[in-house]
Amino acid sequence: MEQALNTKHTHLSSGLTVDKAAIVPLPRSRKVYVTGSRPDIRVPFREIEQDSTPTSFGGEHNPPLTVYDTSGPYTDPDANIDIRKGLPPLRRPWIAERSDTAGRRARPGANVTQMHYARRGIITPEMEFAAIRENLRRDEYIESLRESGVEGARLAERLTRRHPGRPFGAAIPNRITPEFVRDEIARGRAILPANINHPESEPMVIGRNFLVKVNANIGNSALGSSISEEVEKMTWAIRWGADTVMDLSTGKNIHETREWILRNSPVPIGTVPIYQALEKVDGKAEELTWEIFRDTLIEQAEQGVDYFTIHAGVRLAFIPMTAERMTGIVSRGGSIMAKWCLAHHRESFIYERFEEICEIMKAYDVAFSLGDGLRPGSIYDANDEAQFAELKTLGELTQVAWKHDVQVMVEGPGHVPMHMIKENMDLQLEHCHEAPFYTLGPLTTDIAPGYDHITSGIGAALIAWYGTAMLCYVTPKEHLGLPNKQDVTDGIITYKIAAHAADLAKGHPGSAIRDNALSKARFEFRWEDQFNLGLDPDTARDFHDETLPKQSMKLAHFCSMCGPHFCSMKITQDVREYARKKGLDESTALARGMEEKAVEFMAGGARLYSES
Amino acid sequence: MEQALNTKHTHLSSGLTVDKAAIVPLPRSRKVYVTGSRPDIRVPFREIEQDSTPTSFGGEHNPPLTVYDTSGPYTDPDANIDIRKGLPPLRRPWIAERSDTAGRRARPGANVTQMHYARRGIITPEMEFAAIRENLRRDEYIESLRESGVEGARLAERLTRRHPGRPFGAAIPNRITPEFVRDEIARGRAILPANINHPESEPMVIGRNFLVKVNANIGNSALGSSISEEVEKMTWAIRWGADTVMDLSTGKNIHETREWILRNSPVPIGTVPIYQALEKVDGKAEELTWEIFRDTLIEQAEQGVDYFTIHAGVRLAFIPMTAERMTGIVSRGGSIMAKWCLAHHRESFIYERFEEICEIMKAYDVAFSLGDGLRPGSIYDANDEAQFAELKTLGELTQVAWKHDVQVMVEGPGHVPMHMIKENMDLQLEHCHEAPFYTLGPLTTDIAPGYDHITSGIGAALIAWYGTAMLCYVTPKEHLGLPNKQDVTDGIITYKIAAHAADLAKGHPGSAIRDNALSKARFEFRWEDQFNLGLDPDTARDFHDETLPKQSMKLAHFCSMCGPHFCSMKITQDVREYARKKGLDESTALARGMEEKAVEFMAGGARLYSES
Repeated sequence: MEQALNTKHTHLSSGLTVDKAAIVPLPRSRKVYVTGSRPDIRVPFREIEQDSTPTSFGGEHNPPLTVYDTSGPYTDPDANIDIRKGLPPLRRPWIAERSDTAGRRARPGANVTQMHYARRGIITPEMEFAAIRENLRRDEYIESLRESGVEGARLAERLTRRHPGRPFGAAIPNRITPEFVRDEIARGRAILPANINHPESEPMVIGRNFLVKVNANIGNSALGSSISEEVEKMTWAIRWGADTVMDLSTGKNIHETREWILRNSPVPIGTVPIYQALEKVDGKAEELTWEIFRDTLIEQAEQGVDYFTIHAGVRLAFIPMTAERMTGIVSRGGSIMAKWCLAHHRESFIYERFEEICEIMKAYDVAFSLGDGLRPGSIYDANDEAQFAELKTLGELTQVAWKHDVQVMVEGPGHVPMHMIKENMDLQLEHCHEAPFYTLGPLTTDIAPGYDHITSGIGAALIAWYGTAMLCYVTPKEHLGLPNKQDVTDGIITYKIAAHAADLAKGHPGSAIRDNALSKARFEFRWEDQFNLGLDPDTARDFHDETLPKQSMKLAHFCSMCGPHFCSMKITQDVREYARKKGLDESTALARGMEEKAVEFMAGGARLYSES
Repeated sequence: MEQALNTKHTHLSSGLTVDKAAIVPLPRSRKVYVTGSRPDIRVPFREIEQDSTPTSFGGEHNPPLTVYDTSGPYTDPDANIDIRKGLPPLRRPWIAERSDTAGRRARPGANVTQMHYARRGIITPEMEFAAIRENLRRDEYIESLRESGVEGARLAERLTRRHPGRPFGAAIPNRITPEFVRDEIARGRAILPANINHPESEPMVIGRNFLVKVNANIGNSALGSSISEEVEKMTWAIRWGADTVMDLSTGKNIHETREWILRNSPVPIGTVPIYQALEKVDGKAEELTWEIFRDTLIEQAEQGVDYFTIHAGVRLAFIPMTAERMTGIVSRGGSIMAKWCLAHHRESFIYERFEEICEIMKAYDVAFSLGDGLRPGSIYDANDEAQFAELKTLGELTQVAWKHDVQVMVEGPGHVPMHMIKENMDLQLEHCHEAPFYTLGPLTTDIAPGYDHITSGIGAALIAWYGTAMLCYVTPKEHLGLPNKQDVTDGIITYKIAAHAADLAKGHPGSAIRDNALSKARFEFRWEDQFNLGLDPDTARDFHDETLPKQSMKLAHFCSMCGPHFCSMKITQDVREYARKKGLDESTALARGMEEKAVEFMAGGARLYSES
């Protein structure tokens, strides 16, 4: 943990150990790596082994399915996990090779952002890594299907078939190349968050022509939660698929908590630096200064934070626009800046010093996440003047950042009824020049505290379909309290659903493969495969076992919902079985069966529950 | 329990008692009744009492909020609940007055459907009852706001404001009149399920120009669950807002289970009669006959079932269209009929005898729920030839039923990716002549067993926005097992969210009132009101109390998420407070505050956490 030793607060609390449950590989899953153009580009995936189709249903070999894997070394049994040492710094050689850093920052005059490289035509190892990840080993899967026996080609067609999708202007190629990643970053249509001081992170790309990503917020407040709990939440969140994690700690030990998270996180880490700056002035917003804020940015950039939420769009003139709102300003950062502006009757120092901030960002490759400090906090306030005035400003600032080759994504709401969601996406694309949109939900109704993962999961799926690149999860505790480990899981799974539903709707190549494999397993009563191919195998298995706990029931050709007599899947299979016995292609068989008045089917017993 | 005594299986199991938790009124809620044009039209609502706004924030009186109430007499402390006696038959006098019934059915030649009355221009007490329910006492609420002090008119505008909505062709009037309900039923664009033998039911209306409704499925299978558990699930489902309940029992005691449910249900009950018919032939689909099916329909119609799912669209010629599907036929009823058709090589007897079925339906006023036996069971199979061939047939059958003045709704999928959902709605409207659509989800991805309430809640919100009239819930146990009480709650709340999100998006008058009231309570730190105005006050309170259990913390002007320093709502209030002290309208104040460089604000302390 060399890096940690170089920073403040190295006397880390003892007793921090990894959560055992977070390092067990998922059931029948194994970590695999795809090597890129050089041996140190090793891109991780999770391979889920499947049973063969029962002989009575065709006996097909079902090759292992590959899924995107955000869990890092934690789920690799060969990795040596020691929270006190941190993860191996896999990007360090790549950063060093570029010879543009000195110590913990860029050499004077150098710009170390991925956007800077991209615009000069350089494909970095990070870009290649991210490109390989996006393809989910789809070509290899199709190949293994083709090799899986006489029916291989048919099976390949079947399992990789996707509906054309409606991408609303997104343009996802059939195969993501490193050059495509470079080009999207160069245009500003994607970002690759990769602070040079977070070499532990496994590169990933955020943009609407890639898989939809999910962020998980963690972090303690003055009122609860310890450092080890936060590290545990991080490992838990990435186990279930969080693509990035934001540490929103506001309590004691902000710096130390962040250090532990960064050194142990294989995913990019985001923060809201104004929180720490506010702690430095004992919570008195009006005492904030540019210098305190600047020093906080540098402190966090040196630690390795990959993106900063910066509320640069909360301008003095916009604050009165919120006066008639139902819920005023609901962003913490936004309200802090609003208070500062009013107290000093001055334009926001963050807005005024934006170019200076860009200078910091490019010395470490910290990406902007331009905060929507004036986002609506209720259905009533959705899409109002304040919100869109700020959005326009964020668009102007995007262009300022791009002038410095600094990567940018733009944050979005909030609370928005369904019919007003598309306007958010359309205006963001227009005003912010296709910089990736990163939204919090949005929540589609205010009336379900305790279930806001669901009120917002609906809005998240919709806005991601329309083009949002990354979704910030909302947990069931939203508006009520800090999430615990179970809330983190519920939030992540809900948002993985929303993201995947959007990938399907956009027609992302390969996104339907997992649905098709799972449905095939379901139809063939391969219970274990049905659990394991899902987003949360443990919960699926537990639910099944509540009614039918015996192991033999996982081989049953029916389930507790309908019982054997009423199993429609079983009946369909009986019908197909009948066709197969007649040695015909199914469709012809059914037609012929009808012509023959299905005498043999009746004669053969036509039993629902045959022994085969 | 006179009725029950007249039917079979009157020797009901002893030991059936009401679930105590289901009869406690919800927190700070009371049952109120609005009387219609005659004293026996008493329409139930739930009124949620609210605290006044704290004096420091204006001291406004917040009048009680009225919400739609499906829970029946169970939540009325004045009601005498005795499961063994059943609920009072509130509709009995209305049915008797019409003098068109004899015993348990229509007099010979008579047609007792609400559609029949509607088409003759008769507004029944049922229609008036349903109309009053739909308006949610909105006018009265506005009136009480106006009376609530000097700021009343402003408050009324604020709390009843709604965004215009995008109704996709639905046309919801500002006020629902009994005549409007009659007209919609006459056109076939809405149904009012009201079997003459279920006089205990509180009338409600299903159509896309009304509030979106939610159905909960309950029912045991051969493998588990007892009668008392099913009755408990019913009372539990309606407590959380189920508008109708389907009893899908397939195990033992089908008739007896249904009897208990009907006699104790204040909401319409639906069934799938083919399940019971199949039990009568020991699960052998090919042994089903028209006579057995017909007798089952009559048996259930006499018990009081309000709507039947009838899989009349599974025609012989469509079955081969399913041969190349990933998951074949996933509807139980659909697969039973498919098996019958193949075994006999005959057209479905349900299709062929459809007019005879209409004769039964109109003698009791059982509504059709035309089943989608060929719905897709996986993303792969969505919107295929088999599905839409059946949909067209259901449209033809709709017109046959309407010829008999029999009420019809049409069932829909299933598993459909987001971008293909609208086609389902559009084709249903076109082929089925605007008969109400009643969909199961749809699930927008197959990859999350254990979370299919969420995968489907997304699709449900979307399709309800597009025009679906009623949503059939999906619980977390879908595909895995039979739902227990907690699963029922999770399913209902998820679907109430989807339905309400759709009401908002359609611009239903009054739908935003609850969101606005809850957000106002949230902004004013009225914690108890925030819990109580939500869909599930108990869960919201429990979540809050996990972090801040003390009672004093429910009066806190911040919460555990951010703590006092970072509370954006608090800061916004401080800003407004500042404006108020200056005695100005907020918006002007903020502008003036800026002109004055906010000196007083600074001088006054500008504290985040003032004592007031």
